[in-house]
Amino acid sequence: MTEVTELQSEVRALLEEEDIDTVVELLNNRHPAEIGGVIDELEAESAFFLFDRLDRRTQARILPYMQESHQLSMVQHLSRHAQARLLTDMNADERADLYQELPEEVQETLMPALAKAEREDLLRLTSYPEGTVGSVMTSEYATVPAHITARQAIERLRFQALNKETIYIAYVLDSDRRLLGIVTLSGLVVASPQEAVEDLMQTEVVNVHTDAPSAEAARLIADYDLLAIPVVDDNERMVGIVTHDDAMDVQEAEATEDIHKGATVGNLPGSLKETALTTLYQKRILWLVLLVFANVFSGGGIALYEDTIQAHVGLVFFLPLLIASAGNAGAQSSTLMVRAIATGDVVSRDWLRMLFREISVGMLLGLTMAIAVAAIGFYRGGYEMAMVVALTMIIVVLSGSLVGMSLPFVLNRLNLDPATASAPVVTFIADVTGILVYFAIASALLSVPGA
Amino acid sequence: MTEVTELQSEVRALLEEEDIDTVVELLNNRHPAEIGGVIDELEAESAFFLFDRLDRRTQARILPYMQESHQLSMVQHLSRHAQARLLTDMNADERADLYQELPEEVQETLMPALAKAEREDLLRLTSYPEGTVGSVMTSEYATVPAHITARQAIERLRFQALNKETIYIAYVLDSDRRLLGIVTLSGLVVASPQEAVEDLMQTEVVNVHTDAPSAEAARLIADYDLLAIPVVDDNERMVGIVTHDDAMDVQEAEATEDIHKGATVGNLPGSLKETALTTLYQKRILWLVLLVFANVFSGGGIALYEDTIQAHVGLVFFLPLLIASAGNAGAQSSTLMVRAIATGDVVSRDWLRMLFREISVGMLLGLTMAIAVAAIGFYRGGYEMAMVVALTMIIVVLSGSLVGMSLPFVLNRLNLDPATASAPVVTFIADVTGILVYFAIASALLSVPGA
Repeated sequence: MTEVTELQSEVRALLEEEDIDTVVELLNNRHPAEIGGVIDELEAESAFFLFDRLDRRTQARILPYMQESHQLSMVQHLSRHAQARLLTDMNADERADLYQELPEEVQETLMPALAKAEREDLLRLTSYPEGTVGSVMTSEYATVPAHITARQAIERLRFQALNKETIYIAYVLDSDRRLLGIVTLSGLVVASPQEAVEDLMQTEVVNVHTDAPSAEAARLIADYDLLAIPVVDDNERMVGIVTHDDAMDVQEAEATEDIHKGATVGNLPGSLKETALTTLYQKRILWLVLLVFANVFSGGGIALYEDTIQAHVGLVFFLPLLIASAGNAGAQSSTLMVRAIATGDVVSRDWLRMLFREISVGMLLGLTMAIAVAAIGFYRGGYEMAMVVALTMIIVVLSGSLVGMSLPFVLNRLNLDPATASAPVVTFIADVTGILVYFAIASALLSVPGA
Repeated sequence: MTEVTELQSEVRALLEEEDIDTVVELLNNRHPAEIGGVIDELEAESAFFLFDRLDRRTQARILPYMQESHQLSMVQHLSRHAQARLLTDMNADERADLYQELPEEVQETLMPALAKAEREDLLRLTSYPEGTVGSVMTSEYATVPAHITARQAIERLRFQALNKETIYIAYVLDSDRRLLGIVTLSGLVVASPQEAVEDLMQTEVVNVHTDAPSAEAARLIADYDLLAIPVVDDNERMVGIVTHDDAMDVQEAEATEDIHKGATVGNLPGSLKETALTTLYQKRILWLVLLVFANVFSGGGIALYEDTIQAHVGLVFFLPLLIASAGNAGAQSSTLMVRAIATGDVVSRDWLRMLFREISVGMLLGLTMAIAVAAIGFYRGGYEMAMVVALTMIIVVLSGSLVGMSLPFVLNRLNLDPATASAPVVTFIADVTGILVYFAIASALLSVPGA
């Protein structure tokens, strides 16, 4: 991406010289993402100065590529009239996203300034709860009637091109807006011009409901290699499409969310750099404090064995090591399983098979780690200590692995999100069992002096 | 996806009745991913029986959607001649992927059976190392000359449609195969038929080098909302494209890899369900054993303070709690940072700003958790104990957070992968500092009885 950095410096230099015309010319040919990126890096004042000089259609195209806070500041600098025109020029889904971010008073003054069609479209698109397919779809999809010829269909798509997100897929609907089939522009171009759309269209079309999680639309687009997926409402009427580029954004956001959840961080609203510190605090503190209280149980386990510890204070040497090992092995298993469930690689009925596999792997891991810790144990406390730590290691690693493997399935069955709770709960269980197993074995095998 | 399960049962029932013709008819209209999914679930024998009855073009389309082990077993059941025809019918990139998975002896007998063009294409596509753009691109992209009209270009694309991955983007090359620009099918359809391609084409085209990581191509496709990105070699000659659907697969595989790395699991070759147990063991054991030895330092820290522990055995109660808290806070920070670096949200020059933000957040988190642990400390060991654990908590959570935030930047600077080492190293540092800080504060503040 050095090219963008270069473009950036050029723009800066030209702005210093107040040569705005050359800047506009320079940016005209670039991809909207690049123009947005360049403006994002400018100070607020020059940013708006430049943005204001671009033509409206360019403004509408670059805005969605800018950082959210910058989008808002650009829009809020415009007159109400200019805001309304800009929103009208934007794609329906991007318009809805931007509108939802605007302060309420701006929303209220803006709404009456929009034409009826845009107003209704906006109200509908913003009515779907966040995280659903409805909230990421666009209403601007191309349609063609079933009875016309391929040549006529291409002609119709020509005229729809400007206002639709894509004309590469055209939807064939009945009078109730129910989906009869789809034709692709490629299919229309290849077909003989006189062939009828109804003879060309594919009728088995994968679709998704407005209320489904947006991740489901992304998954179907990925699994079926689609350009776009049609979205239907409760009455099976077509109400929008989700396109491949939005699916990629959803897929990336989902992965980020799952990665954060795996480290006990709640769902962040957007860019980490832009998130308010108070929000960040809120998203992080919950599990941290819960785990403080959960660890009282670990402490409780230790308190049970204070006499053993007094007698063999050397046991404490291995405590962090054994707890950490159980937790690490458990976290590995649960992470593997949570991700495999999220990507659809593993489903509920695979549980027993995965459990058997995990017994073998967990046993092998436990044995290897037991050998490592036995060597250290022998060096620190002789034969008896080696026995205690090795035996503990095998048990805690195997049980940590099995818990780690099973918990995501259980949470999934209970319709709880495996990504949120698996890692911390597995670590907690591994900690407590690790402590109890360790001291129980130690009390049994080590001779208490003076006893 | 209930529909696929239904299709599955229908197919099973029909196969029981040996009514293969109805099965083939039933599957004919379905998406290749669905057909592949249905065959994937059958027992090996019925799977091949059904696969063999499908026409060659369908076989070529569904194979890439099947599980890898099943793909191989289908292909290996075919005669050499049938194998060669099947590979010829497949898309270039999917053919290359399948070919690379075949056992060497099959590769050797197969290669001479392919036509020269396919053979050379295959050799070239399989020559790029895994993980590079070259290894995921396809060589089947559409081209048009610069000097022809839009109408002529559409006519040319009609004839290329069957053999190209997409005709929605056509590449305009000079005589050295250097990229002059691109035209979209939509642009050609909308344009006046007499307009020249060279006047219609976009000339500022984002491209990517064969040797770049495949994740870079996926990122550019996501950032620029592209249908496909052109791939160029060292001499700036165009050699292929990466399409949006392959980019989604790359993006998902990258996220999976990063999620696994975050839990100290190495890069798995594919499906978790399909991975051999020995591979799984190998990918998991490395960091687990490294961390056993790393934790000897934690034990060493404890050994330093054995007298303090003997005198105040109640201190051990809080040991897992404090270590875990430091580790949890550190893991949160490092996970947030690793992901933000991976998605491009945060870059190296943001480090100082992120550090300052983390000081505030870490301090707030530490204070909140200190209050929680002070209450438990007071209950267990009175005012002095509350002081010791609260003070320790603030220090370890803040330092854990700062280390967690900084380490990914440092690793990134050293050109090491932040995803691999951040989590375990942060946890290790948090463990050791947690122990040292805790017992140092305890030794200083608690009166040693009999001293």
